[in-house]
Amino acid sequence: MNFQYTEKSLELQSRLKDFLKKQILPADEEVEAFDRDPANLWIKWPGLEKLKDAARKEGLWNLFLPRDYGDFSPGLTNLEYAPLAELMGRTRWASEVFNCSPPDTGNMEVLARYGSPEQQKKWLEPLLEGKIRSAFLMTEPEVASSDATNMETSIVPDQGDYLINGRKWWSSGAMDPNCKIAIVMGKTDFDAPRHQQHSMILVPMDTPGLQIIRPLSVFGYLDSPEGHAEIVLESVRVPKSNLILGEGKGFEIAQGRLGPGRIHHCMRLIGMAQRSLELMSARATSRSPFGRSLDTYSSIRQEISRSACEIEQARLLVLSAADRIDRVGSKSAKELISMIKIVVPAMAANVIDRAIQIMGGKGVSGDSPLAHFYAAARSLRLADGPDEVHLSQLGKSTIRKYGQAND
Amino acid sequence: MNFQYTEKSLELQSRLKDFLKKQILPADEEVEAFDRDPANLWIKWPGLEKLKDAARKEGLWNLFLPRDYGDFSPGLTNLEYAPLAELMGRTRWASEVFNCSPPDTGNMEVLARYGSPEQQKKWLEPLLEGKIRSAFLMTEPEVASSDATNMETSIVPDQGDYLINGRKWWSSGAMDPNCKIAIVMGKTDFDAPRHQQHSMILVPMDTPGLQIIRPLSVFGYLDSPEGHAEIVLESVRVPKSNLILGEGKGFEIAQGRLGPGRIHHCMRLIGMAQRSLELMSARATSRSPFGRSLDTYSSIRQEISRSACEIEQARLLVLSAADRIDRVGSKSAKELISMIKIVVPAMAANVIDRAIQIMGGKGVSGDSPLAHFYAAARSLRLADGPDEVHLSQLGKSTIRKYGQAND
Amino acid sequence: MNFQYTEKSLELQSRLKDFLKKQILPADEEVEAFDRDPANLWIKWPGLEKLKDAARKEGLWNLFLPRDYGDFSPGLTNLEYAPLAELMGRTRWASEVFNCSPPDTGNMEVLARYGSPEQQKKWLEPLLEGKIRSAFLMTEPEVASSDATNMETSIVPDQGDYLINGRKWWSSGAMDPNCKIAIVMGKTDFDAPRHQQHSMILVPMDTPGLQIIRPLSVFGYLDSPEGHAEIVLESVRVPKSNLILGEGKGFEIAQGRLGPGRIHHCMRLIGMAQRSLELMSARATSRSPFGRSLDTYSSIRQEISRSACEIEQARLLVLSAADRIDRVGSKSAKELISMIKIVVPAMAANVIDRAIQIMGGKGVSGDSPLAHFYAAARSLRLADGPDEVHLSQLGKSTIRKYGQAND
Amino acid sequence: MNFQYTEKSLELQSRLKDFLKKQILPADEEVEAFDRDPANLWIKWPGLEKLKDAARKEGLWNLFLPRDYGDFSPGLTNLEYAPLAELMGRTRWASEVFNCSPPDTGNMEVLARYGSPEQQKKWLEPLLEGKIRSAFLMTEPEVASSDATNMETSIVPDQGDYLINGRKWWSSGAMDPNCKIAIVMGKTDFDAPRHQQHSMILVPMDTPGLQIIRPLSVFGYLDSPEGHAEIVLESVRVPKSNLILGEGKGFEIAQGRLGPGRIHHCMRLIGMAQRSLELMSARATSRSPFGRSLDTYSSIRQEISRSACEIEQARLLVLSAADRIDRVGSKSAKELISMIKIVVPAMAANVIDRAIQIMGGKGVSGDSPLAHFYAAARSLRLADGPDEVHLSQLGKSTIRKYGQAND
Repeated sequence: MNFQYTEKSLELQSRLKDFLKKQILPADEEVEAFDRDPANLWIKWPGLEKLKDAARKEGLWNLFLPRDYGDFSPGLTNLEYAPLAELMGRTRWASEVFNCSPPDTGNMEVLARYGSPEQQKKWLEPLLEGKIRSAFLMTEPEVASSDATNMETSIVPDQGDYLINGRKWWSSGAMDPNCKIAIVMGKTDFDAPRHQQHSMILVPMDTPGLQIIRPLSVFGYLDSPEGHAEIVLESVRVPKSNLILGEGKGFEIAQGRLGPGRIHHCMRLIGMAQRSLELMSARATSRSPFGRSLDTYSSIRQEISRSACEIEQARLLVLSAADRIDRVGSKSAKELISMIKIVVPAMAANVIDRAIQIMGGKGVSGDSPLAHFYAAARSLRLADGPDEVHLSQLGKSTIRKYGQAND
Repeated sequence: MNFQYTEKSLELQSRLKDFLKKQILPADEEVEAFDRDPANLWIKWPGLEKLKDAARKEGLWNLFLPRDYGDFSPGLTNLEYAPLAELMGRTRWASEVFNCSPPDTGNMEVLARYGSPEQQKKWLEPLLEGKIRSAFLMTEPEVASSDATNMETSIVPDQGDYLINGRKWWSSGAMDPNCKIAIVMGKTDFDAPRHQQHSMILVPMDTPGLQIIRPLSVFGYLDSPEGHAEIVLESVRVPKSNLILGEGKGFEIAQGRLGPGRIHHCMRLIGMAQRSLELMSARATSRSPFGRSLDTYSSIRQEISRSACEIEQARLLVLSAADRIDRVGSKSAKELISMIKIVVPAMAANVIDRAIQIMGGKGVSGDSPLAHFYAAARSLRLADGPDEVHLSQLGKSTIRKYGQAND
Repeated sequence: MNFQYTEKSLELQSRLKDFLKKQILPADEEVEAFDRDPANLWIKWPGLEKLKDAARKEGLWNLFLPRDYGDFSPGLTNLEYAPLAELMGRTRWASEVFNCSPPDTGNMEVLARYGSPEQQKKWLEPLLEGKIRSAFLMTEPEVASSDATNMETSIVPDQGDYLINGRKWWSSGAMDPNCKIAIVMGKTDFDAPRHQQHSMILVPMDTPGLQIIRPLSVFGYLDSPEGHAEIVLESVRVPKSNLILGEGKGFEIAQGRLGPGRIHHCMRLIGMAQRSLELMSARATSRSPFGRSLDTYSSIRQEISRSACEIEQARLLVLSAADRIDRVGSKSAKELISMIKIVVPAMAANVIDRAIQIMGGKGVSGDSPLAHFYAAARSLRLADGPDEVHLSQLGKSTIRKYGQAND
Repeated sequence: MNFQYTEKSLELQSRLKDFLKKQILPADEEVEAFDRDPANLWIKWPGLEKLKDAARKEGLWNLFLPRDYGDFSPGLTNLEYAPLAELMGRTRWASEVFNCSPPDTGNMEVLARYGSPEQQKKWLEPLLEGKIRSAFLMTEPEVASSDATNMETSIVPDQGDYLINGRKWWSSGAMDPNCKIAIVMGKTDFDAPRHQQHSMILVPMDTPGLQIIRPLSVFGYLDSPEGHAEIVLESVRVPKSNLILGEGKGFEIAQGRLGPGRIHHCMRLIGMAQRSLELMSARATSRSPFGRSLDTYSSIRQEISRSACEIEQARLLVLSAADRIDRVGSKSAKELISMIKIVVPAMAANVIDRAIQIMGGKGVSGDSPLAHFYAAARSLRLADGPDEVHLSQLGKSTIRKYGQAND
């Protein structure tokens, strides 16, 4: 047991910090203003491609891709990538600059692990090069997202193709003008055993029948240019070769996609929480109501020290989950992966909320990143299954483990 | 002691409920869609005036105005009005239909109590008739809003007029196209004793030098058409007769404005919380993940029963504060007024947050009122002084009361 | 609606406060030391009877007994008695001085309402005179106390008598040397419909076969001299006339016993919480670590002001429940009675816990009443059914009420 | 970074688990009954010495002593010892069997690091052999324990000896019949700079003038046979050679004593929390109120899964603090040592409290270890400085670190 980052990880952290300081932070205000302006809805900030080029040149590109994926991967373990994801999470829009933003990361992992050579050529390569973006169509408005077995979207063989019908929402990234491909989850066999009904299939965004109905808001944020779309799939026809891995393999793919994705999400949230901690610390030193600097109030100090404790604990938990995935795989890390899903979004939301309170009115406005951070953290208590589902699963497995003890 | 509403109050509640059911709720979706559409920024929903006429005809008009204000008032006590405010609070935009929305309510009270006959004629009458709206310019971006003694806006006598200079923000309602008049708080004497430096003055919104800089967002919401404005006052000149009550009377007026305003805010929040409770109850009966209706899960029942307990307690606390204001005045109700400011916004935010969690993705989107309710409730933990200021004042007075006890 | 105590209630509060100040508080340290001394286990403090006489002479006797019980009763409503129970609750052992302590109060109510003239003559009268004390044998160690339908104790007719067999625990008061009579709940018919299986029966404590096995501790407290007993009933024989109301009436009696008993328990807890608030306020003014009086720390002020808010809300809730019981009966007040059971013990435990923290080491010791208060409050989250049962029932009824709303 | 225990640690954990299972758990009920019996106050359970011999023979002896202390030490790092402390913490009285119980552990560390050869010969050796026990006299009733600079006990040179006067309390272990020596903290120079006033001195418990006034209770527990004593020191005379390290070195010694002691305390608390988690899991599978096993209720699962998450996070935090102490010393681990003091006692108290609630009445009684665990955990939020002091220090240092960030 050892709680220090490796040299390699520290070196990358240092270079990434440098890039963030010199290239990302100075542009932050401009990007936020651009994305907020109703006139720019669904338009990408024009400076983005230049920053992506710079990141690629610095070797800060596709860092998320686990080293199992050979040539594609820069060779980091999940544990080595985790602190880099934390750093990227400090700025709402930074991940894309390093080609490390969801849902592309998960989609690229799926294609790298399960994609056919043809699928990899056509979609994985441009994704890895950052030329296109992608969407993941899973959640449906009419059924509880906590229970994927309810899913109603059908993927039916038809004259050598598949015909897809269904309605999806919370398809994050689908509004992005660069979004060219979606991975759609649906059922190829409604009568098969519960976990063999689902399949995943590639659907180009311009396929006839795929219609974006509207963007959804998250606490008032449309999250332009990526957005969260509601999409109708009406007799959408794609060739059989678009199926990933095979019919009935949807759950298996989804499971494999989960572990590292959770690490990324959670470390980005820890980045948000850490930045919020720093912002409230700074605020506490710069305001003096009633003639005393805020940082001398014991209640303010408590808010800040509690936040520091919660962040550090959550960080260690996520790092230990990453380590376990690296050593023994997502399946055996299942309990830790449930734990971080339960712990981190709620922790981040709490810390950000404290920062908002210390920041005052500025905290709920667009003049600080906090309110937008809050919306992101809060919605992650629902995305990928609400807290309750993970609490219940972990509770069940914990009881199974200890239930025989003597009371 | 007696915990039943009076006949009079029950009768008004019944009529108001009826109006809400028949006229407000059916329009809710249309209004929300209108206000959310970037194309309609700062434009009022066209159906509003018709609803206002209907409310006036039904005698559901200016109900907030305490009976001390003679002819202007429909004659309700704060305690009688409180449950009506709760009902209005169930829908984000309903209060305006009954001419009961902030900051007009507070401004009208100020003019009714302290305004000169000329001021009442010119501004109070059109406000009471719902012909114009108003703003209240208090908070400043550069100083902690928790401590009004820091205020930097100046109101200086100049050739028979007053010249006003300063910068304000969080001026709610100022973006409204009907907003014609602002009450501005500033200092007429920076050297006077701490609570005699401030004055309030009437400034028509079209006065040269008053410039709206931008709207502020609250968790992504611009709250069109009312909005929250940042405003610069640069050598704004108004006649001396625009001063309210007298130089140095700003704090005195602010104190009087506080009590009933808090009751209104808090009861509207209780309305939001109550509606959220009903929405989560309904959701619990309509979803069945994993083959079991949500309402059979013990954790869901706990979220709902805890919310019911918290709402009922908060409601009783606000009603008891209203009763105390009615009987002995705001000053003597000071502790209760602090208590409701501490308790209610946080309670409402918690209850709404639970409802969001049970609602799932729909809860954070624009498809339910919850996310917008949350933004409103959360920001009221900061508006009118952050929780911390009220906690500190109440703590201090509680310790003073009991500190002599024997430990 | 009206939030002021009546003249009558205020007058009694004043007299009771006076008695507490002059007769109870001066003896507090002596009583606590006596009851704590292992040498005095199960012995009553010798000064008690004198204080009881004084209280009786002052007319501060049996105040709890609702006015429905004719001659027996001093004629107070539950709402009028509630603030008196709060005052008694401020000192752990005060209620007995006024013949207002559980489980006698509930037992006397049962006998006054449902007892036969013979039962009243033999047991109710000496109880009302404070000559004997009583126990209530309900909870069983082998079955979940949350679900009384599981109860295993049997009450079987046998040769003109009843034979009782079973094991009970948490029989509070049964260790008291004055405890002469127990009301035992058991099943007379295991095959009847769920709520008609139970009966209540009077069992003199000296009946052969009734054996006190041991006292139970509550967080280390034995609560001498009353104690909490584990009791075995082995072929305990009592005459048929000892049955209360009739076979199968156990649940009906239990329901009637519940409402006012909850009011008493909750108001005493509010008394404990209120006294804890006063003790922490006093402590905050008397200690100055790091050269600053504790009462100037914002975090201390927050603990105190939050406690004041929570106590006041809980008090209003209990008073409103008492009022509802008085006006429309326990059955129709069911939701409020659930609410106070959910809210008050947890609130009191939290407030007391904050007081302990501010008090420091003294707070967990016997040198302040706080640790013992905490044990009492915490155990009331389990007694009379754990929080979870009440949360679930209230959740269910809340969902039933609102579940049809539109989500 | 690496989250696996070393082989060496795993091997010791396995042997210790085995010992606990075979020798400690079977005696638990007997020991608890013995210690609880008022007849056995301040008498040691007679079976203890035999268990100590067995532990010593198994090499499970003095495991706590860091490897820096040469021959005395079995050679474990803090990180290696930590999981062993967790295992010992699972049973209230187990640590003493392995000669690893406070305050002996801290006292032995002090003597091993700072003691003169003569002091080590006379007191350290019998302590290491488990022949005697010791006390640490620090806290005083009249001054806030959070601020040691207030201390009033004096240690004054007098005719070649030191004369000690003062009053101490919360001297844990001082009631133990085997307690032979105390380390007393007091001031040798009231006028020196704040952190050079204090000294530590060895005082045999039978020195004339040292008088045990009374045992203190923690909630209702006297914690016999060790107890928590109030002690008066009245003209207590000891030779100069009893001073440890030198005059004015009290704070320096206290600092060095802190780090590892916190690790031990915290890991034992994690052991209590972990055992509580196991007990509630077992209870959940063995009770079925309302016809459904408790472990199928979603709220019960949530209590259990939240507890598992909190325990694992706290464990990682303590292990990372232990690792940091091992690598760079207590001083540089200061923030982590503050964090674990803030996090772990509160976490443990919460988890134990949930277990109590699930356990029902048995949970607050002596029939499960939970209520006593709770008292221990709760009092550790006060011992060694209340939470508030650590929150404030950590808050201050966190603000210092981040306060320059841009808000």
